[in-house]
Amino acid sequence: MAMKLYGFWRSLASFRVRIALNLKGVAYEETVVDLLAGQQFADGYKGVNPQSVVPALDDGTGAPLFQSLAILEYLDETHPEPPLLPKAPRARARVRGLGMITACDVHPLIVPRIRNYLGNELKLDEPTRLEWIRHWFNEGSRAIESHLANEKDTGRYCHGDQVTMADVCIVSHAAGAKIFECDPAPFPTLHRIVGECFKLDAFARAHPLKQPGAQAAH
Amino acid sequence: MAMKLYGFWRSLASFRVRIALNLKGVAYEETVVDLLAGQQFADGYKGVNPQSVVPALDDGTGAPLFQSLAILEYLDETHPEPPLLPKAPRARARVRGLGMITACDVHPLIVPRIRNYLGNELKLDEPTRLEWIRHWFNEGSRAIESHLANEKDTGRYCHGDQVTMADVCIVSHAAGAKIFECDPAPFPTLHRIVGECFKLDAFARAHPLKQPGAQAAH
Repeated sequence: MAMKLYGFWRSLASFRVRIALNLKGVAYEETVVDLLAGQQFADGYKGVNPQSVVPALDDGTGAPLFQSLAILEYLDETHPEPPLLPKAPRARARVRGLGMITACDVHPLIVPRIRNYLGNELKLDEPTRLEWIRHWFNEGSRAIESHLANEKDTGRYCHGDQVTMADVCIVSHAAGAKIFECDPAPFPTLHRIVGECFKLDAFARAHPLKQPGAQAAH
Repeated sequence: MAMKLYGFWRSLASFRVRIALNLKGVAYEETVVDLLAGQQFADGYKGVNPQSVVPALDDGTGAPLFQSLAILEYLDETHPEPPLLPKAPRARARVRGLGMITACDVHPLIVPRIRNYLGNELKLDEPTRLEWIRHWFNEGSRAIESHLANEKDTGRYCHGDQVTMADVCIVSHAAGAKIFECDPAPFPTLHRIVGECFKLDAFARAHPLKQPGAQAAH
């Protein structure tokens, strides 16, 4: 049975899970939870994920899995090939840390619920909201670039010449930064690696703009 | 040689690492990076952690480790007893996911750099900033409570009767919520488990208010 991914075309966290499923060669069907229409707050979806966010992944063996990085680790443990983490603890820590710079410290700052709060509760105008979004994307890019440009473990990808969880995360980061028209120029190593990743079909066909719903919205 | 933790008394992410080090029985010394004085932006500290955040952990075997959850995983891999994760992939996913609800989707929204941006850039007054902080703490508590109160895997702690990474994260969450005077009443399962954790010395002596610097600030 194909796994069931609850996602949304524009969700960067859903994008991460889609890439991982593709890399692992796992068949899945995506159920659209339209975040812009508020479908994540429907009672039915709260039964899937009480946090009312995407993604959630139902692999048919129990309750739906939640939180994209926890799902990536689960997929890596249950479908070990190709691995999303290197073997040595120190290398694993670097890969996880790089991914978390954006998945924990950038992405949660720019999701729809935050943009809605900035607009609806704080009454901020669109240019001010855009400045907020770009500021945090750029802060994350700066930290990631500093690691990637200065550390000898950086290779074709974030960590050596094999794709890891860190690449999955920085690709979603870069796709988000592009949607909000952040300047990529100050972060050449990050964007060189993102370019390498998009040469791979698993990344390219997981892209937000290639998902159902994206066409209608553009 | 004792490990070197770069932390700050008030940092909830440093608190998480301190708990894990205590649980594992690992000796460490803490170097204070005063976030309120801006020491995280000093050139010297950027060499330790280019993201200019705490914690970072130098275990003497290479570059300092960064991102609290990546550090927790590293400690669990290099010091397996007592484990911070259960053995089965599905159980590990639940534990990681519960922790990430707060470590990824709450904590990054209330850290000093965000509070500074809300005040300095967006010119929001203190009551509005407090409302922001409490809103996101409560959103996280609601999601965590819903999982803990409704899932059979919940035990004395978040997952059964052994302490896991999820407990480390919800304890830091609850300590932060308390600092900002969020009402605990709507989240009885979460706070019942936090109470259980604080009965353990590893949690109790890692508390922010028991660290150097906390006395002077209060």
